[in-house]
Amino acid sequence: MRIDVLTLFPEMFDGVFSSSILGKARAKGIVDLHTVNFRDYSNNKHNTVDDYPYGGGGGMVLKPEPIFAAVEDLLPPDAEVKPRVILMCPQGEPYSQKKAEELSGEEHLVFICGHYEGYDERIREYLVTDELSIGDYVLTGGELPAMVVIDSVVRLLPGVLGNELSAVTDSFSTGLLEYPHYTRPAQFREWDVPDVLISGHHENVNTWRRKQSLLRTLQRRPDLLEGREFTKEERAWIEAWKKNS
Amino acid sequence: MRIDVLTLFPEMFDGVFSSSILGKARAKGIVDLHTVNFRDYSNNKHNTVDDYPYGGGGGMVLKPEPIFAAVEDLLPPDAEVKPRVILMCPQGEPYSQKKAEELSGEEHLVFICGHYEGYDERIREYLVTDELSIGDYVLTGGELPAMVVIDSVVRLLPGVLGNELSAVTDSFSTGLLEYPHYTRPAQFREWDVPDVLISGHHENVNTWRRKQSLLRTLQRRPDLLEGREFTKEERAWIEAWKKNS
Repeated sequence: MRIDVLTLFPEMFDGVFSSSILGKARAKGIVDLHTVNFRDYSNNKHNTVDDYPYGGGGGMVLKPEPIFAAVEDLLPPDAEVKPRVILMCPQGEPYSQKKAEELSGEEHLVFICGHYEGYDERIREYLVTDELSIGDYVLTGGELPAMVVIDSVVRLLPGVLGNELSAVTDSFSTGLLEYPHYTRPAQFREWDVPDVLISGHHENVNTWRRKQSLLRTLQRRPDLLEGREFTKEERAWIEAWKKNS
Repeated sequence: MRIDVLTLFPEMFDGVFSSSILGKARAKGIVDLHTVNFRDYSNNKHNTVDDYPYGGGGGMVLKPEPIFAAVEDLLPPDAEVKPRVILMCPQGEPYSQKKAEELSGEEHLVFICGHYEGYDERIREYLVTDELSIGDYVLTGGELPAMVVIDSVVRLLPGVLGNELSAVTDSFSTGLLEYPHYTRPAQFREWDVPDVLISGHHENVNTWRRKQSLLRTLQRRPDLLEGREFTKEERAWIEAWKKNS
């Protein structure tokens, strides 16, 4: 997979792109990560990439020309594979694990990261294929959101995660939050590991974990349970929990 | 504000902590950002910070000792101000702008970033004050989520954003998504800026913007409108839009 990131702050990506899973995926040749400073495409005397908004008001707006030129420069005119051109913005589609899986099937992703400014609407309408938001909070720019999307997509590419990592049960594949984990020491200060986990009784361990997952989800994220069909065992756990709380 | 980040990958933070708003806030002395490699607190021969889970199963679990020791080392025993100790994890409370505002009133934040592994439950129960998740997608570690939270909190600190930036209407303070922005050129390729924005008629511009904000929210994020009390004008726009779509 090839990934290009258009940004005015390419140096923000150095540490993230060379560490951990992204650094390893790059070293293995599984992903090819590039940053493009779109100020290099400003094509005007003062190298400006933004301008005042039509209609007035505060803030600056990213001009269409440098962004179009930078994206088009990445594509040979006869390219058979069109990249996904992804705009990171608060107005975008809420990002999800499903979207990560969809994007992991692409050959080429291009991310556009604005910073402080808004985007000229013609960028949204005529250049980008996807607008994504990683959550309902205000950030300084699209750089951190692009890193988040890239990390979540690249770790799904074949060969990136070793077996020991891919085996981890993650929170969103089962539809429930993860159960509590414990490791040594069995007693840390005055706090012990639950007896069932050191009992050696596998069936009891599994039952305890399924129950903890369900109850934790019920307490913290009941929204994740909407539409779920509960088993008889799960309904009994929920009833008992409601009685005791 | 002082911020400490416990991580096994401190180099991931270099570019982000020294660029843009975070770099400026640091240079102005408004925020004091530090990373702590908690492997330095492992206190065992092989410098391990994780171990196999009790009860079996894949994945590794972060041990309690190094994390407790690293956090406690940040606090003089007679400290009057207790820091918020924030665990970044998929099971956490969904992060929001409201939480960013709350955290921006603190004097000291400590972030704990796991990587691949789960956390020993005793860390959650007896050390952390907040568990946060930035969204329902799977990431390799807590580092990017911590950067997201830090960026959103620091930009709220007094003196960080200049006037020109703080004036930007952001998407989550009005409860609606932003209206479309346009800047020069008035014609780019065959695509024109809407006439109203170059009319010079301020009232019409404002009306157009309010309407676009509402309709964009209705189309893209109807969930943000739940519980909203619409004005008569807004109800008329919605009716007209429903008829035409």
